[in-house]
Amino acid sequence: MTVTIDDKTLEEHYSKFLNRHVDRRVILQFWDDYLPKDVKPHPNPYVLAAGMPNEGLFPVESVHVNVVERPFQHLEYPFKSEKIHVGAAGEIGVNEAEYVKSRVDDGSMVDIWRYDPSHGDNIPIAQALQYSDTKGFPQLIDFSKKLVSYLNKPAYDNWDVMLANGSSDSLSKVFTTLTDEDVTVLMEEFTFTPTISNVTANGGIPIPLKVDITDDASQQGINVEYMDQLLENWSTGEYSHLSKPRLLYTIVTGQNPTGMTQCKEKRQKIYDLCEKHDIIIVEDDPYGYLKFLPFDKSDPLKNQYNDGTITFDKYCKEILAPSYLTIDTSGRVIRLETFSKVFAPGMRLSFIVANKFILDKLLKYADISVRSPCGLAQAMTINIIDKWAENFNGDKVRAWLSWVMKVAGEYTHRRNVLFQALEATPAYKEELFELIEPSAGMFISIKINFDKFGEISDKLKAMNFLNYKLLEEGCIVILGYRMAVDKKFSYDRSNFLRITFAMAPDEEHLQTAAERLGKGVERFFKEYHN
Amino acid sequence: MTVTIDDKTLEEHYSKFLNRHVDRRVILQFWDDYLPKDVKPHPNPYVLAAGMPNEGLFPVESVHVNVVERPFQHLEYPFKSEKIHVGAAGEIGVNEAEYVKSRVDDGSMVDIWRYDPSHGDNIPIAQALQYSDTKGFPQLIDFSKKLVSYLNKPAYDNWDVMLANGSSDSLSKVFTTLTDEDVTVLMEEFTFTPTISNVTANGGIPIPLKVDITDDASQQGINVEYMDQLLENWSTGEYSHLSKPRLLYTIVTGQNPTGMTQCKEKRQKIYDLCEKHDIIIVEDDPYGYLKFLPFDKSDPLKNQYNDGTITFDKYCKEILAPSYLTIDTSGRVIRLETFSKVFAPGMRLSFIVANKFILDKLLKYADISVRSPCGLAQAMTINIIDKWAENFNGDKVRAWLSWVMKVAGEYTHRRNVLFQALEATPAYKEELFELIEPSAGMFISIKINFDKFGEISDKLKAMNFLNYKLLEEGCIVILGYRMAVDKKFSYDRSNFLRITFAMAPDEEHLQTAAERLGKGVERFFKEYHN
Repeated sequence: MTVTIDDKTLEEHYSKFLNRHVDRRVILQFWDDYLPKDVKPHPNPYVLAAGMPNEGLFPVESVHVNVVERPFQHLEYPFKSEKIHVGAAGEIGVNEAEYVKSRVDDGSMVDIWRYDPSHGDNIPIAQALQYSDTKGFPQLIDFSKKLVSYLNKPAYDNWDVMLANGSSDSLSKVFTTLTDEDVTVLMEEFTFTPTISNVTANGGIPIPLKVDITDDASQQGINVEYMDQLLENWSTGEYSHLSKPRLLYTIVTGQNPTGMTQCKEKRQKIYDLCEKHDIIIVEDDPYGYLKFLPFDKSDPLKNQYNDGTITFDKYCKEILAPSYLTIDTSGRVIRLETFSKVFAPGMRLSFIVANKFILDKLLKYADISVRSPCGLAQAMTINIIDKWAENFNGDKVRAWLSWVMKVAGEYTHRRNVLFQALEATPAYKEELFELIEPSAGMFISIKINFDKFGEISDKLKAMNFLNYKLLEEGCIVILGYRMAVDKKFSYDRSNFLRITFAMAPDEEHLQTAAERLGKGVERFFKEYHN
Repeated sequence: MTVTIDDKTLEEHYSKFLNRHVDRRVILQFWDDYLPKDVKPHPNPYVLAAGMPNEGLFPVESVHVNVVERPFQHLEYPFKSEKIHVGAAGEIGVNEAEYVKSRVDDGSMVDIWRYDPSHGDNIPIAQALQYSDTKGFPQLIDFSKKLVSYLNKPAYDNWDVMLANGSSDSLSKVFTTLTDEDVTVLMEEFTFTPTISNVTANGGIPIPLKVDITDDASQQGINVEYMDQLLENWSTGEYSHLSKPRLLYTIVTGQNPTGMTQCKEKRQKIYDLCEKHDIIIVEDDPYGYLKFLPFDKSDPLKNQYNDGTITFDKYCKEILAPSYLTIDTSGRVIRLETFSKVFAPGMRLSFIVANKFILDKLLKYADISVRSPCGLAQAMTINIIDKWAENFNGDKVRAWLSWVMKVAGEYTHRRNVLFQALEATPAYKEELFELIEPSAGMFISIKINFDKFGEISDKLKAMNFLNYKLLEEGCIVILGYRMAVDKKFSYDRSNFLRITFAMAPDEEHLQTAAERLGKGVERFFKEYHN
């Protein structure tokens, strides 16, 4: 059942959420939109209007993208090349030109030609390198909409999608449009700190919500009881001098930095609270596709993505956490997705799902600021997906998610290796730290058992000292408290580190890092003085 | 002689120009910057901090770019392919795969490999598709700086360059940082209207400056006398209720829409006025490289770019109009360049030159909004330039400008063809319109000789009527007055059209368009009634 919400209802409901200067953001159109009825325009007009270079003036005739089928595919090649393999200088080489030609021959290249008339869904160079719609190319918009509809169909009808230049840009667009001097924004007490900057840059005030950092999947994430009480008693509480929150910013799945995922029941309760208090939910979900099954101590390298246990249907229907969109009956959810974590960050490509009223305001802001994301990145992304879809009867969503599952499989393996290595350290065995298992994403939380030390008079000072020991041992981590919205508020919960397995070049790297981390923790317990 | 300006002097001088909320724009750093002296970090740390995917997780192994040597090169090929030639379906074909392989064999491809250890200047996939510095890749920054230093060396020392996502983004960054509710901004009375939006979106007020639209190169552009009097008598003039202008926005060369270029003497006078009244100059220069020599009626297709008259040195030293930077002794010039007009707009790639104090503020804004331009676009751009540089002893600036000169040559040809065709129309011969010769850029101004009509009671209504006739004849143009900052102010000068030769596919298109335009103008004179 999809709820119908008309444009007028959206406008009436959501106008009050807009930054008071939103109406100033108007692109002045200098071409004609109005024609008197008696003017009969020529059916085949010659355009001398727009200052767009003819595509024959672009220096690029075609682009040929050597795309892999799965992450780290190159490790299986019968050769090594310093151009493909890291640090392969001096290894048995390959004639790279011949290799490129073989890829052309076996039809595995994604070709982007100046024109591609027989391949209607592709974005050719003539479009990719030209000025294009702020909203994004229809091909990629259409794909994004299908992806949303397939996995996270909104419970109302009047929504739309626009592209943006990575989630950082999406966040900026959203908070520039919805935050203002008197706006308070709820967010997880530890969060992606640039969002705090987005809120405060617009004069807004971020308010931390208590987060349950636990292995218990039914308890992970925002503490609903706390949120309920906070809102219920706002006028008499600590923040009574501030206006009641208008926005909730939440990283719903594989939260950064805690790795927590809100379970379905929690999401429903939080949504209901937002309904009750009329709060817009900004659902940031860069990590959601990287969903893990629980770590199995008895079989640490078990990887259900790779052993076939996780079928496509199981992944879509049971593994992935459904978005707030799926329970959104009033259009209050703004969902942010990105191609950065499961494709490539350097593409600077993301998309925003929102009700049409709000999306229109975001689009108007884009019109007078950065406009469309890079056309080349858009073309490469959709054309690669299109190529993959050849193996899936043209089903782009299925083709894309099949790639994404492979990435999730790789991250699962990395999680496994790092968990195994960390649990093998003496420090872990002595219970100097515990691992908080992430249910998705790129990050593991490591909780330091300060109890084992005895009295710690200043937890932040202790965490800093731990960090110095880790740096001396050669292990760079993020201190959880450095990502706190309000260090005082989160003081009791600041005894954790954030580590990631995303960037390591190989397993050995993760294993050595774990050893170093263990040693650093040991040294902290030996060397720290209050 | 370069003037030395230290950081403190810049800060003292330019702080007053900042939007009052600039200080809010702070990215919260959650990684360590400070270390106590007694901490000795490991010399080879393992990084578990940043949430960046390892490059082995990117789906792209390499990209091979089929780059041309000159615009419209494909018209010389001994074959036609519907993938390369517009509308070539059914033509004698080519095996495109073999063609691609031949391009690999002749070494003309620009290869972007995952790694490229032996080619230090290139940006490989591992970097191009990864998160990168907001400022831009050092390789492209370095190139941009060299380009500025070579052609337009600032007259002071403390300047820097950052990249942005096309000039639209550059403009947004600049005006978001320098405009505010009480700020007035001077600009040419007809201008790129999105800039008006940028100013008003920040609460600022655009003030038109009278522009001389004339063939006389020594008179083109902002009327200095008007500007001088306006500033001199501000407190008693029409705008006395507004604050004195803090900014001048000017499209210095090949102005949009008028095609005018300020001569050197005019620039010096305008700069001196800005010194006197302490005004920052925002010099937007998307078209400057497309500089024309005068149209020669006696030899209409004469093209000095193509006949060798314009050597590289002549182009750099005599043809190109030197930037305001070259006379900027106080750091008040912000220069905006873009790769859009001479490379490809879809790259969304531009750069900003400014004094270090202001540039730092623009960068801080970028940090909390869109961040870096697309890494792929950056890589492709600099790697192509690098490839071209192989033919110029590695001199990237020379290689780049040699491409740019070819583009300017193509535009010169298009200007010639369109001028010749327009001058051949009966309407031109009857002096119903005149051509205002552009000295650079993409646009021609066509002035309608209302005098030939007799009394016109409403010039804007008449221009609209003309537009309808042109639409009926099948010629889409831009009405000059639609790009006016203030239609009343510019009423007397609104009898012109803007047309462009940039987008037309071929000469025939330009010729037919000119005929249609001529007919439309004729019909206007026959059919219009006050």
